Amino acid sequence: MKSIVVTMAHGSGGKLTQELIKEHFWPRFTNPALDSFLDSSILKIQKEIAFTTDAFVVKPIFFPGGTIGKLAVCGTINDLASVGAQPVYLSASFILEEGLTWKELDAVLDSMAETANEAKVKLVAADTKVVERGAGDKIYISTSGIGYLKVDPVPQPRRMKNGDAILVTGSIGNHGLAVLQARNSFFTKLPVESDCAPLWGLVEALLAAKIPIHAMRDPTRGGLATVASELAQASRLAVTLQEDQIPIDVPVQAACDMLGLDPLTLANEGKLVIIVPSAAADEALRVLHQHRYGRRAERIGDVQCQPEGLALLRSRIGGTRILESLSGEPLPRIC
Amino acid sequence: MKSIVVTMAHGSGGKLTQELIKEHFWPRFTNPALDSFLDSSILKIQKEIAFTTDAFVVKPIFFPGGTIGKLAVCGTINDLASVGAQPVYLSASFILEEGLTWKELDAVLDSMAETANEAKVKLVAADTKVVERGAGDKIYISTSGIGYLKVDPVPQPRRMKNGDAILVTGSIGNHGLAVLQARNSFFTKLPVESDCAPLWGLVEALLAAKIPIHAMRDPTRGGLATVASELAQASRLAVTLQEDQIPIDVPVQAACDMLGLDPLTLANEGKLVIIVPSAAADEALRVLHQHRYGRRAERIGDVQCQPEGLALLRSRIGGTRILESLSGEPLPRIC
Repeated sequence: MKSIVVTMAHGSGGKLTQELIKEHFWPRFTNPALDSFLDSSILKIQKEIAFTTDAFVVKPIFFPGGTIGKLAVCGTINDLASVGAQPVYLSASFILEEGLTWKELDAVLDSMAETANEAKVKLVAADTKVVERGAGDKIYISTSGIGYLKVDPVPQPRRMKNGDAILVTGSIGNHGLAVLQARNSFFTKLPVESDCAPLWGLVEALLAAKIPIHAMRDPTRGGLATVASELAQASRLAVTLQEDQIPIDVPVQAACDMLGLDPLTLANEGKLVIIVPSAAADEALRVLHQHRYGRRAERIGDVQCQPEGLALLRSRIGGTRILESLSGEPLPRIC
Repeated sequence: MKSIVVTMAHGSGGKLTQELIKEHFWPRFTNPALDSFLDSSILKIQKEIAFTTDAFVVKPIFFPGGTIGKLAVCGTINDLASVGAQPVYLSASFILEEGLTWKELDAVLDSMAETANEAKVKLVAADTKVVERGAGDKIYISTSGIGYLKVDPVPQPRRMKNGDAILVTGSIGNHGLAVLQARNSFFTKLPVESDCAPLWGLVEALLAAKIPIHAMRDPTRGGLATVASELAQASRLAVTLQEDQIPIDVPVQAACDMLGLDPLTLANEGKLVIIVPSAAADEALRVLHQHRYGRRAERIGDVQCQPEGLALLRSRIGGTRILESLSGEPLPRIC
């Protein structure tokens, strides 16, 4: 009789591992490159690619708006999109905790397959390992991605210029707050879902409209504040954000006010911060607004020469504070 | 004062994550592609590549002959080598358990850097996450690798032919037994080290000598028996191994006899099973014997037409038994 949960034997590399792969993975990810009898997949590729990796350890593995599987696919897609690369191939390695139910595993895999299909990326390499109860936490996923570069030169902080506009593709803090709510029960649940989404389509639309993208980042762990600070440091320019221009959903702001959290440091998994020439900002926003993941895009600030290397927030009431990289850990295992 | 161990704050994505990366990763893996300000590395690449991924959860993380870091680099290199691809780029994502000491982390990273240097592969993408005490086991590593295909057509089971010779590049079972001994204290420690090694050099030497490689596998989890069974199934031919030709170190055989283990199902991390035309077998062995990782290479069997899809072992005393994929889990978390 088949066990209803993952057992250590499913990590043996033998028959039960094959069964695990054939029954749970193959039906969802079949493609010619995922050849079970080769240790590596063989891929045709263009001359220059982007390559990235991330580990995902989010807790809980299911949260409003996503799963650890959807997050893993989106995270890797968005890291590729951030350098102007079209995501093409994914690998995924799974560390399963003994006792994970097949139902949980399949729900995670379903969400991965659905997101990969939406984003037109193929899973071409995978691996599974099983650890004993208490040596993991249900499931950890590491994904790597290969993308085709579509922008030359690659968007990067050193291309930022004095006067550039800073855009964000929508409201911030939703992922961080959705996970926090899913994990704790210390306040009324506000209707907040993770923004977890694959964002290559947004970048593709901007490129089709010939928007010159100077720099781009996805504000995940550490949030908008960390990305602003890192962009300022790397460009040696000043990044100034206008607090009243930053889109924040009402329940996110309300929860942050109650809990003393700064929405600018909360993680996002479906947003991009995009730096474009000021003259292209309006057209870029028009393009973003037409896309399902960019409807609430805003211009939130500008790049200036001084003070060199600093990110500043101009508050609603006229004050200015320095935005810093997140220090310490307000919310562990957010992604 | 700096903590002497990894803390949850080192997973924040903010300042302490940057400190972790700058102090522990950069000094060991510096290269132009590992650009800290881009979410993906940009790589020049040839037209067809091999791509693979694996998770590593070996317990303990240090064992005679290797570490989880050396294992992760070798495992990915050997998966690429097995399809005839020269390993070029690696990514690594780390799941660190809170409380891991910097000394442990650095020893793991040192062994990764040393092995990557030996094998001339570059780490070009990395990520770190931290989980709470008890939600991991010191350190898990997932590596992905990109390699340049050097063999056309790619070695694969469907290229195997009746009469082909089956070679193994050295003694089997060493990794499995070394990890078992490192984990348990139920018998006298025999002098067995893991064979953990990067094997592209062996393949390169065979290719330089124009040996036609029909198929190739690295017998890791599940060991030689599982690989023999999988090769037979995939090729729809018979794979017959001669027990007295299979190199097994004396202490490995002694320990297996005492413990009732089958060395053919023990994991290897520095061996290849190589299928070549019978006429090329002697020359292939000559080439392998000149290489540090192939000194004890042997011809251990032949490919035949019948019985279709089965792997057989001819024993020293003249009997024959069917070799099967490992079923169940004699030794979990071996890699």
